[in-house]
Amino acid sequence: MKTVKASIIGFGSIGQGVARVLLMKKEYLNKEGIDIKVVAITDSKGAAIDENGLDLEKCLAIKADKGTVAEKEMTGLDVINQIDHDLVIEATPTDVITGGAGLLNMQAAFENGRDVVTSNKGPLTLKFKELNELAEKKGCAFRYEATVGGAMPIINLTKEVMAGNEIESIKGIFNGTCNYILTRMLEEKSSYSEILTEAVDLGIAETDPTYDVEGIDTAGKVVILANAVFGMNKTINDVDRTGITQITYEALEMSAKNGKTIKLIGEVRKDGSLTVSPRLVPIGHPLSVSGTLNVASVQTDLAGEITVTGKGAGSIETASAILSDIISIYKAD
Amino acid sequence: MKTVKASIIGFGSIGQGVARVLLMKKEYLNKEGIDIKVVAITDSKGAAIDENGLDLEKCLAIKADKGTVAEKEMTGLDVINQIDHDLVIEATPTDVITGGAGLLNMQAAFENGRDVVTSNKGPLTLKFKELNELAEKKGCAFRYEATVGGAMPIINLTKEVMAGNEIESIKGIFNGTCNYILTRMLEEKSSYSEILTEAVDLGIAETDPTYDVEGIDTAGKVVILANAVFGMNKTINDVDRTGITQITYEALEMSAKNGKTIKLIGEVRKDGSLTVSPRLVPIGHPLSVSGTLNVASVQTDLAGEITVTGKGAGSIETASAILSDIISIYKAD
Repeated sequence: MKTVKASIIGFGSIGQGVARVLLMKKEYLNKEGIDIKVVAITDSKGAAIDENGLDLEKCLAIKADKGTVAEKEMTGLDVINQIDHDLVIEATPTDVITGGAGLLNMQAAFENGRDVVTSNKGPLTLKFKELNELAEKKGCAFRYEATVGGAMPIINLTKEVMAGNEIESIKGIFNGTCNYILTRMLEEKSSYSEILTEAVDLGIAETDPTYDVEGIDTAGKVVILANAVFGMNKTINDVDRTGITQITYEALEMSAKNGKTIKLIGEVRKDGSLTVSPRLVPIGHPLSVSGTLNVASVQTDLAGEITVTGKGAGSIETASAILSDIISIYKAD
Repeated sequence: MKTVKASIIGFGSIGQGVARVLLMKKEYLNKEGIDIKVVAITDSKGAAIDENGLDLEKCLAIKADKGTVAEKEMTGLDVINQIDHDLVIEATPTDVITGGAGLLNMQAAFENGRDVVTSNKGPLTLKFKELNELAEKKGCAFRYEATVGGAMPIINLTKEVMAGNEIESIKGIFNGTCNYILTRMLEEKSSYSEILTEAVDLGIAETDPTYDVEGIDTAGKVVILANAVFGMNKTINDVDRTGITQITYEALEMSAKNGKTIKLIGEVRKDGSLTVSPRLVPIGHPLSVSGTLNVASVQTDLAGEITVTGKGAGSIETASAILSDIISIYKAD
């Protein structure tokens, strides 16, 4: 049995999802030869630390009760620099402008020789190459399946399952909010602004939806795929981007009459072009999925087009992607 | 560099696809530390053998020219028993009634300590457990991604990518011929029998289409998933099966008016129930793909529903699945 001392940095929806999943899957992990001991959890108020392993059920209860697990005035960065552990589960909020705390956390983790599994897109859209090189130099694992499409396993699919294939392009729907809005506009014969209001009411869109509807979130995921799958060195500024705010109900209806639907499609091609824009997709095509789903189609030289669909968000779903990364690092061969 | 001596048993569309793919990917395989040397190819007329490695381009040319590569009167079974090699690529035609030559070939391969990668469903629908146990006992690898859905990587997806998830059910469209017929009936406002004639003309359906349209092929794939993914011990007789011959254009049209489509769905659930039957699928659901595509939805406890779509048939596409299996066996860690 390999004991892995871990920290959970960021204890919002995803960090708590990770704690729940580690509780649910303790026995499974043990069978795979992995014993995860969470020695530190941090949130915006501070840290809970126990070198013998925190009681995750208790931490979740305290978080629900008090809004924080903080017992000590330590930041995530303090924990990463000062507490002895093997794995940093980085689940702080995404900031695609500066990289936010996540960028400093990941750099510090690698500098200290710790592996990183993350759901945080920000650092990967800005500094992928630097982070990857630092991880390699320090002999650390760096996994990030959860950054693109939540539970939809696109990165590991291309790396592990489609071995032997050359990938020519990846295109898909990487933002559930946009997909929901476009799906509902047609169903309800409604305008963009009406459905946006509904989506905000349901918590599917943020009060300021710019990040989703202008395609910035999608662009971030396209950048991560470009860097992770194609080995490029792109940032979010390299993406040619158009959002969905100009799409009308009439356009969706006319498309439907012609057997097509309109989706916000992000695409990276091996020639280096990165785009996000609304596109027509034939109904019945694997990319024509509705609601908040995410989907990615991989064009390959041998297997043709392989498409994978899954839930793009959700606490447990995203934590599931983090768990699969943890298993792939520590599983005994 | 690991040299792998291989035989290609069965040199029809898939066997030839394997030879083409091995030629195309020689450099890639070498980079992965694998050198595949094909020491024997057999077809229904006999065998071509060269212990130093056959010239695959020449073999493909001879096959195209003469219809056979046979130089010696040896069967696949003879080659497996008598020629020294590591890997049997079993690509003989599927026979779900008796298992056909494939069953004897696989048994002999394991008895001789040889690994098996196959596209042949027959033996796996009849004797999965026995074959798997024999392979384990003899320390041989046994991989069969190509048996379900051609290039659609459902088996490796569930085994490798969704680690940590418990799988509750797998359902999908596993027969491109049925999917084509149902798609075209609605598009052309035509009857089952009219579109069947079209499909036979195009080579998408066999002259005797029973195996496809009665759901027997789909049932075989459901059995393989039950045994390979869930560890069950099922045969094709355990499947509750209904085909598509009773579906009318009117039923498809009425479904479409209600935002649904009819698909022949195969399903295995973890409680052991195996079914093949026409079912309503909402348009926009990941299973609602058109044409000859195959698709599989995996219901998991953590990640929710993950769906994968791909080409279910085709020489190069199926060979691509065989190649990914070969790489996963011999790739240096």
